[in-house]
Amino acid sequence: RTMSYGKGNVFAYRTFMEPLTGLSGIPESSFTKKDHTVFGLNVTVELGGEAFLSSFTEGDNSAVVATDSMKNFIQRHLGSFAGKTAEGFVQYASEAFLKKYPHIEWVQMTAEELPFEAAVSNGASGGLVFNRSRNEKLQTFIQMERNGAEAVVTRQYSEVRDLQLVKVKDNSFTGFIRDEYTTLPEDSNRPLFVYLNIGWTYEDEDDAHAEDPSRYAAPEQVRDIAGAVFEEVASPSIQSLIYSIGLRVLQRFPQLTEVTFESQNRTWDTVLEDIDGSEGKVYTEPRLPFGFQHFSVTRDDL
Amino acid sequence: RTMSYGKGNVFAYRTFMEPLTGLSGIPESSFTKKDHTVFGLNVTVELGGEAFLSSFTEGDNSAVVATDSMKNFIQRHLGSFAGKTAEGFVQYASEAFLKKYPHIEWVQMTAEELPFEAAVSNGASGGLVFNRSRNEKLQTFIQMERNGAEAVVTRQYSEVRDLQLVKVKDNSFTGFIRDEYTTLPEDSNRPLFVYLNIGWTYEDEDDAHAEDPSRYAAPEQVRDIAGAVFEEVASPSIQSLIYSIGLRVLQRFPQLTEVTFESQNRTWDTVLEDIDGSEGKVYTEPRLPFGFQHFSVTRDDL
Amino acid sequence: RTMSYGKGNVFAYRTFMEPLTGLSGIPESSFTKKDHTVFGLNVTVELGGEAFLSSFTEGDNSAVVATDSMKNFIQRHLGSFAGKTAEGFVQYASEAFLKKYPHIEWVQMTAEELPFEAAVSNGASGGLVFNRSRNEKLQTFIQMERNGAEAVVTRQYSEVRDLQLVKVKDNSFTGFIRDEYTTLPEDSNRPLFVYLNIGWTYEDEDDAHAEDPSRYAAPEQVRDIAGAVFEEVASPSIQSLIYSIGLRVLQRFPQLTEVTFESQNRTWDTVLEDIDGSEGKVYTEPRLPFGFQHFSVTRDDL
Amino acid sequence: RTMSYGKGNVFAYRTFMEPLTGLSGIPESSFTKKDHTVFGLNVTVELGGEAFLSSFTEGDNSAVVATDSMKNFIQRHLGSFAGKTAEGFVQYASEAFLKKYPHIEWVQMTAEELPFEAAVSNGASGGLVFNRSRNEKLQTFIQMERNGAEAVVTRQYSEVRDLQLVKVKDNSFTGFIRDEYTTLPEDSNRPLFVYLNIGWTYEDEDDAHAEDPSRYAAPEQVRDIAGAVFEEVASPSIQSLIYSIGLRVLQRFPQLTEVTFESQNRTWDTVLEDIDGSEGKVYTEPRLPFGFQHFSVTRDDL
Repeated sequence: RTMSYGKGNVFAYRTFMEPLTGLSGIPESSFTKKDHTVFGLNVTVELGGEAFLSSFTEGDNSAVVATDSMKNFIQRHLGSFAGKTAEGFVQYASEAFLKKYPHIEWVQMTAEELPFEAAVSNGASGGLVFNRSRNEKLQTFIQMERNGAEAVVTRQYSEVRDLQLVKVKDNSFTGFIRDEYTTLPEDSNRPLFVYLNIGWTYEDEDDAHAEDPSRYAAPEQVRDIAGAVFEEVASPSIQSLIYSIGLRVLQRFPQLTEVTFESQNRTWDTVLEDIDGSEGKVYTEPRLPFGFQHFSVTRDDL
Repeated sequence: RTMSYGKGNVFAYRTFMEPLTGLSGIPESSFTKKDHTVFGLNVTVELGGEAFLSSFTEGDNSAVVATDSMKNFIQRHLGSFAGKTAEGFVQYASEAFLKKYPHIEWVQMTAEELPFEAAVSNGASGGLVFNRSRNEKLQTFIQMERNGAEAVVTRQYSEVRDLQLVKVKDNSFTGFIRDEYTTLPEDSNRPLFVYLNIGWTYEDEDDAHAEDPSRYAAPEQVRDIAGAVFEEVASPSIQSLIYSIGLRVLQRFPQLTEVTFESQNRTWDTVLEDIDGSEGKVYTEPRLPFGFQHFSVTRDDL
Repeated sequence: RTMSYGKGNVFAYRTFMEPLTGLSGIPESSFTKKDHTVFGLNVTVELGGEAFLSSFTEGDNSAVVATDSMKNFIQRHLGSFAGKTAEGFVQYASEAFLKKYPHIEWVQMTAEELPFEAAVSNGASGGLVFNRSRNEKLQTFIQMERNGAEAVVTRQYSEVRDLQLVKVKDNSFTGFIRDEYTTLPEDSNRPLFVYLNIGWTYEDEDDAHAEDPSRYAAPEQVRDIAGAVFEEVASPSIQSLIYSIGLRVLQRFPQLTEVTFESQNRTWDTVLEDIDGSEGKVYTEPRLPFGFQHFSVTRDDL
Repeated sequence: RTMSYGKGNVFAYRTFMEPLTGLSGIPESSFTKKDHTVFGLNVTVELGGEAFLSSFTEGDNSAVVATDSMKNFIQRHLGSFAGKTAEGFVQYASEAFLKKYPHIEWVQMTAEELPFEAAVSNGASGGLVFNRSRNEKLQTFIQMERNGAEAVVTRQYSEVRDLQLVKVKDNSFTGFIRDEYTTLPEDSNRPLFVYLNIGWTYEDEDDAHAEDPSRYAAPEQVRDIAGAVFEEVASPSIQSLIYSIGLRVLQRFPQLTEVTFESQNRTWDTVLEDIDGSEGKVYTEPRLPFGFQHFSVTRDDL
């Protein structure tokens, strides 16, 4: 009969893992190496064995490895993993399950490798900021009204939406209000993962049409500014980070009057502080709920 | 300028709250009261005030109420709430924010009320099992092959999928393996929230066509069996629960040969153990990952 | 080797099909019959056979049944189907595929049955309006500001969101502007499928707290009004329908000042006009894009 | 009062539009130009004016521009658009609405620009194949069993999933079966949009661990092979395309034994065949359902 159980969506991110280099080149691809500043996996594990039958038929849990323990097992083994591929990790962790628990007869493990792409498009290697999704959205809005025989623009803005940036260290969050509702500890060096929507408005909306392309602020450029500023600053909060980004956008594009932000905090939780011989750590996805900020920066802030 | 911040997707479930009765009847509706055995909210809060400016421009967090604290604030206020409507709760909690933190100038709060419908369709009131989603799926699969001039059925099953059932108390999970990977505590009385896919196979697939309707096992009946059995048993685990459901389905429908299960554990986390004068508690959504089980019950198990 | 192909998400809705009655009752369920005023399926079909090999290896399409033709095949067979269960339909259509195309060796077919629940909660049978999703959302919003020592409510509303209602006949859409951009035909009797968000505001927001429950407008009652009014009227457009619903809500609940609507048009496309011996037709999902309306009704409209 | 209506999710793709060049460079970004071989928009339009009141209150449709006509209006104006930015398009089309229909008082338009990134990573410019999503998934699976004191690998494969590739011309689909169920026309030069899941299995699973990195087939390399082969071939069908890709993967990586495919057809529908002075056309999203293929290629096919 069918009989198995397991754990799905075990997220584990390990930082500063050894890179994978030395791949064979092929004519169809310029891909030759994988930077592993962040090595991220979404793992599903499933276990089987006759010993589990009584847990179903008798309600006898004495042979049950709690699925919560499976999660811990996977996350800690990512910390001790010495290989360089997702394929190697699933074999390493599956063997460890079979070795640790003699009553398990078989293991299936699936790992999705979550890519993190360097966010600084013309920087040197060694950057700390990465794009989690590469599907940020470019969007624009206009409102026009009839005014006599004229059609006039009454509102206009452009946006980059769903930009997902993580900086793996050199961020802090301290000094906030502590009272009877506070359970969050201070953190003087955390990774910081933000979702950003960034909008901007032109002083003269005709500049947005790029008839003079040197007057156009491309959404891709605004996206790159966000990554570059995040790389430069040691942020004490998301509030402070988005203010810095807004100032830089206005400095680079004097044709803009205002930059607005909708940000969300998706910072990972730490699950393993120390990895032998490495400055890396192991993190996992945060739980809901998520904090957010709404803010705008204008030329008066320059 | 735009300036605010807050917390989204704060889930809070309170059990055994006072029901809402005495509504005015209208001709278009038979709705007259709300049972509040589970009162579930998904809250978003947003706060504003000039005092927050320095957190953006100076990185000064001294006026910042951490959004994590906002979450605690909302969940605890659901525990102390004495009203009966979501509209009442958002006003109660918003006033409390303004009273507690004098530098907050305004509050916006949105609450989605998450309905929980009694899962036992012809039972008395006072049940403990509820449907979270009412959009479970009914599905059927067939495989046919050519065999000479004949088309023969080589596989057939029917399913209820995405059934979401929560029982608010009288479930336990104890006695499982404790070792260096175990961080989950034992729990002798927990709520239990399961997602279920239940499939079944007919001995004679023609019975599935309902030419003789008394030989048809309607998916809606299987769904109701799951709710009723969950209500009856004090389950020591999901494994044990699905075994009981499978036995009952085979007892009620002797025309079936096998019942299969895919189950997931979505049990809430407790955030408030004690509410004055009530046996209720406050819970919140579990975090990823989720445990799952695969199992089948056959007539040999009867 | 693996070799097959097929079509997924073939939606087909048949109206006024024979009901399924005469099920065996069981103690755990009050379910005894299925009304088939709408019988909706989401079908996936997959075909296999050695004859398809040259379509992969040689680019020879001469044995290929286009997947677009498979869609037509399934939708037309729903029109000629004489049975009463989804299980019966998948066998009927699978046999027909094997019979029609001798080079097909095997067929797999999955059908999700999409439930449509009567929207008129205390009406007689024979209604024409159905809920497609039963997971409409109940939501409430408040905005409060500090005003000296007081916290005052500056905005409040309650909502039903994601209400999905279909009326299977007796709706029209005619008389709109026809010009060089018009390709939509007029339709004097169409099904009408709307998604609705309905919001309402109390004159005195304290009524929303239900301390006097007879002054409370329950979201479930507003939902039921929408279904009942839709059942009553022969609508010439969504615009007209939502105006009628808004008037009725204000009539039933004099404590409200305004009702607002966000509506979307999700009306099915007809794929089979005539079914022998039936007033029913076969429809399918509309394609994107979708039309929408925003509107508010106030007491001045009464 | 609130009163407006419109159309959402109007997808329009224009091919071979003029590129945008001459942007001002900034230090934070290497972005300098936008290739417009595909310029894709997802548009929402909303219109207002007092003239629409009678459509709500009287059911009088004589002033109603059908939302279906709005869709046609937008798609045709993308064909006649002479600018180079999404911001320019929304102003161009909004002005045209106000000019064409004198009773419209205001227009709001939002356009999401859908990026299409060249799929051939080390090719010259002028390519015809593009990635629609850049979030393809890299995934790996292992199954291990206990065999005495040993843990043995019983199944292993790696995958690229959700690869979305469009080739804007030079594809055909002709010569398939035509019978009473066929409504699809033959097409000798169509765009072709495929979703691909590609899996592969190593002869020796240890090669997947990259201890010898020259023996590792990186998922990113397999992805790039798919794009490059698509660029090279003039495909008569998806079946033929995936066979070609499979052969190439096995040629480049002799350490693999099998390549498997799950493909879907998401090819756009043409809405405007001719654009003055351009070889481009305007397309839109296909409607459901979607065709799919399952296939595997082995070393015997070489």
